[in-house]
Amino acid sequence: MAAAQATAESNRGLLDRAGVLAVNMMASPGAGKTTLIVETARRLSPSVRCAVVEGDVAGDLDARAVEEAGFSAVQINTGGGCHLRADMLAAALAEVDLNAVDVLFIENVGNLICPAGVPLGEHLRVVVSSTAEGDDKPVKYPTVFRNADAVVVSKWDIAPYISFDLERYTDAVRRLNGEVPVFTLSARTGEGVEAWIDWLRARADGARGA
Amino acid sequence: MAAAQATAESNRGLLDRAGVLAVNMMASPGAGKTTLIVETARRLSPSVRCAVVEGDVAGDLDARAVEEAGFSAVQINTGGGCHLRADMLAAALAEVDLNAVDVLFIENVGNLICPAGVPLGEHLRVVVSSTAEGDDKPVKYPTVFRNADAVVVSKWDIAPYISFDLERYTDAVRRLNGEVPVFTLSARTGEGVEAWIDWLRARADGARGA
Repeated sequence: MAAAQATAESNRGLLDRAGVLAVNMMASPGAGKTTLIVETARRLSPSVRCAVVEGDVAGDLDARAVEEAGFSAVQINTGGGCHLRADMLAAALAEVDLNAVDVLFIENVGNLICPAGVPLGEHLRVVVSSTAEGDDKPVKYPTVFRNADAVVVSKWDIAPYISFDLERYTDAVRRLNGEVPVFTLSARTGEGVEAWIDWLRARADGARGA
Repeated sequence: MAAAQATAESNRGLLDRAGVLAVNMMASPGAGKTTLIVETARRLSPSVRCAVVEGDVAGDLDARAVEEAGFSAVQINTGGGCHLRADMLAAALAEVDLNAVDVLFIENVGNLICPAGVPLGEHLRVVVSSTAEGDDKPVKYPTVFRNADAVVVSKWDIAPYISFDLERYTDAVRRLNGEVPVFTLSARTGEGVEAWIDWLRARADGARGA
């Protein structure tokens, strides 16, 4: 635990010295993390330069999707591990040209439980949960929501076809995490994405200015 | 590990002596496990008597939903644990009248990784993954698919509103797990549910006849 914490702090120092804002994206499998990251990177570019570290149990589908969109990606395979660890991120950071990056997205393994309490050295922790997963996720998986700097409700475009009560969802988030911003958006249609982009851009500007 | 295996075997013996078929339902958060279990129990009843053990990190929303539908449920909270364990199931089984049950659904914690390699004493391992999660889940989370006795693609009714390539999904499942049955269904509309019910009913009849 102490070694993991020290590695996370070392990662954070490396990122800070390069003026990189690192964003740990946590979600269930299939919540749309990759699609959101790619769409966010497109909108932040070119004034904010983005790169991605992709965490997966197996495969490199997400890293290839990111690269096809024109952004650099480093794939981490956990080989069964249910979350990224700080030492995995440290190894990935060695492959990233941090001086050419303003925002580094760290796409964690698809899992709403295990990544919650594991520090990587990131600056921001963002939870993504899709409307398709239902409005009860904050009640069922409280830790990841309690520690989040922002919550994104993704796949907002399919909300009309399912039962998703945004008030019930937001009330549960509020009970866990006071004033954390909750963004409802569809990365596919673009609806709601601008508010999320503005929030993130302000934080990236802060990191560069620091 | 050896103790966990012994507890799983003890659970299995208890279930076998009572003629109960135990079905371990594994899925991502929000894949629709509870809705599928309730709809399946409704259709199997009254000739096949069903009960549910509900595993969650926190809360009892699912157990209450099952009870409101008229079936008995025992809630297990893992308190942060990312999967059920055999000793948790053993404690839950002590609260179930096994002589009044033919099929016991064990709804595992919402997680496509951690439950995959953990024996509980169940007879069948079923993976549920929703169309909303995308067709890449077998590639990204191979272990749970490799060890499954059946795969259910849930939320088939929203497939027209998202991009889900069933052939790509099924091909990936086939590479991991040969002839495992893949059921596409919507527990909400009922589409496709009958084939799944028939498959499960045949297995329940086998367990009672044994």
